[in-house]
Amino acid sequence: MIKIAIDAMGGDYAPKEQVEGAVMAIKNIEDIELTLYGDEVEIRKYLTDETRITIVQSDGVISMGEKDPIAQIRGNRKSSMALALSSVRSGDNSAIVSSGATQALIAGAHILVGRLKQMKRTAIAPLIPRTDGGTTILLDAGGNLEIKPEFMVQQAYFAQVYSKEVLNVENPKLGLLNIGTEPGKGRQLDKEVFKLFTDNEKINFIGNIESKEILSPPCDILISDGFTANMVMKTIVGTAKGMGQMLKQELKQGFFGKLGMLLSARNLKRFKYRLNPEEIGGAMIYGLKGVVVKAQGSSTNVGFYNAIKVAAIIVRKDVLNKVKTILESDVL
Amino acid sequence: MIKIAIDAMGGDYAPKEQVEGAVMAIKNIEDIELTLYGDEVEIRKYLTDETRITIVQSDGVISMGEKDPIAQIRGNRKSSMALALSSVRSGDNSAIVSSGATQALIAGAHILVGRLKQMKRTAIAPLIPRTDGGTTILLDAGGNLEIKPEFMVQQAYFAQVYSKEVLNVENPKLGLLNIGTEPGKGRQLDKEVFKLFTDNEKINFIGNIESKEILSPPCDILISDGFTANMVMKTIVGTAKGMGQMLKQELKQGFFGKLGMLLSARNLKRFKYRLNPEEIGGAMIYGLKGVVVKAQGSSTNVGFYNAIKVAAIIVRKDVLNKVKTILESDVL
Repeated sequence: MIKIAIDAMGGDYAPKEQVEGAVMAIKNIEDIELTLYGDEVEIRKYLTDETRITIVQSDGVISMGEKDPIAQIRGNRKSSMALALSSVRSGDNSAIVSSGATQALIAGAHILVGRLKQMKRTAIAPLIPRTDGGTTILLDAGGNLEIKPEFMVQQAYFAQVYSKEVLNVENPKLGLLNIGTEPGKGRQLDKEVFKLFTDNEKINFIGNIESKEILSPPCDILISDGFTANMVMKTIVGTAKGMGQMLKQELKQGFFGKLGMLLSARNLKRFKYRLNPEEIGGAMIYGLKGVVVKAQGSSTNVGFYNAIKVAAIIVRKDVLNKVKTILESDVL
Repeated sequence: MIKIAIDAMGGDYAPKEQVEGAVMAIKNIEDIELTLYGDEVEIRKYLTDETRITIVQSDGVISMGEKDPIAQIRGNRKSSMALALSSVRSGDNSAIVSSGATQALIAGAHILVGRLKQMKRTAIAPLIPRTDGGTTILLDAGGNLEIKPEFMVQQAYFAQVYSKEVLNVENPKLGLLNIGTEPGKGRQLDKEVFKLFTDNEKINFIGNIESKEILSPPCDILISDGFTANMVMKTIVGTAKGMGQMLKQELKQGFFGKLGMLLSARNLKRFKYRLNPEEIGGAMIYGLKGVVVKAQGSSTNVGFYNAIKVAAIIVRKDVLNKVKTILESDVL
């Protein structure tokens, strides 16, 4: 059985969506056991089935704001997030899924789970949609704003293992997000990373990729520093949101427009669904001693269920040990 | 009369679209005179009216690739781009419009037009669409990958004058593109720029803006370093392109979908039009001794005409001298 800790109180619609997502996961994934950390009374309001589910009472809440995340964690050791993280460190659980505040989760994971000693920097790696129906790993979406080139090499290893094991990509290709495709483009950091990737036989590097190709890159992984990748991720979200509004404004104009929109309603819904990052599942935080999966703050039950599914796959495929093996081969 | 130099040979569809755009401009803007630099025989193929238009024969071409732009310019002093740029320096023309390669145009402008001595770095500042139908100035979209905070202050002044004079915004507001809204977010650069903007009474600074709001920011100008803003701009383009493909894939499914799409055709076209950066006009390169406007490489006649219109407004409103006055007040 794969044991997963659930932070039931983190997220915009917690604990309702988290608890419902957990029940969905139990129904659909046979080899998991879940421990829900949170307020037992609140959790029971939404818990329709307790098969393979345990509840652990928490106390105190990590706020959804991003102010002083380290103090948040240190001051709330009995919060659902802190208890769930600690249960991974102690070995009670193999993974944790949380929709709580990203920065608090990253800080908490460092303090309570700990960083893999072979990996110098963690990274947060969401999946972004592709026009061909697949997904691309984007990293680092928010961990390290300023980073050394050699630490990005370690993050690249991790992403390759994840792509292969969790997303079933045979021989994952990696591209460096840059402002032009030619070698030599970009800042000092980008030039140095380009060289390190090119010279490293363990990285299947295809070169610089411009963000004009962000939804259809010729690779499976897109990497940049934490500032840039975060900016790119949020620009995708913002453009999708803005375009959705513009599309609505335009489509509903005129009689034929309104009729057309009515007839297209089903297809438009499917379109919206495809762009919803939630449908893809959680983002793993790379580089920790345990499996930590961040689900969207605005997760619905389906989104949270998908994040649990991802956590289960990561454990089942033994991703952490596979990454460790590669990292250790570098040290030798 | 406002005299404008036209690089007739730069652009994916040159000289056809450039010449047609020039004729459109002459018909619609009464106070301009255009000089078309390029191959006279080629130009005459598309020139239906020579009112207030002069042709100057050029020799050699700046390639549309971005390889070694400085050498391109130095080796092609008789090219249409180089001749047109030089005509601004000599005072024969007050502005130049080109759809040629961006990096060559920036390099050429530095060499042949020259930088305003009061402004330490140039910036390229395209307009991006807004969900409310307006536009936002985004800078620096490609000039300076690594920049000092105080140089970004000068770029901010320029953008404010441009917003007021060219876009008719009464009291333009400026936001710093960042990964979070709270003060103190971002890299060292962002923190320093935040402080400089806050302390500067000449800048109407509203704080950090996340790119989640990229198409509906609560300000008129969005600023970041040349690497980040370029990445953001290309991510908007890439997301719009990708979403357009996904929308088409989804809409055409099923009988009702096909019918709905047929009825919505007009509105969908308008939607596409709104997202087309070309419709907005050219991007000015800030910080030069003359008015240099970059039109999209893929400009059609309408796109190129819009860029000429923008160049005429910049000259008519005396933008350069207004910026100089502000820059000089800093030195005192």
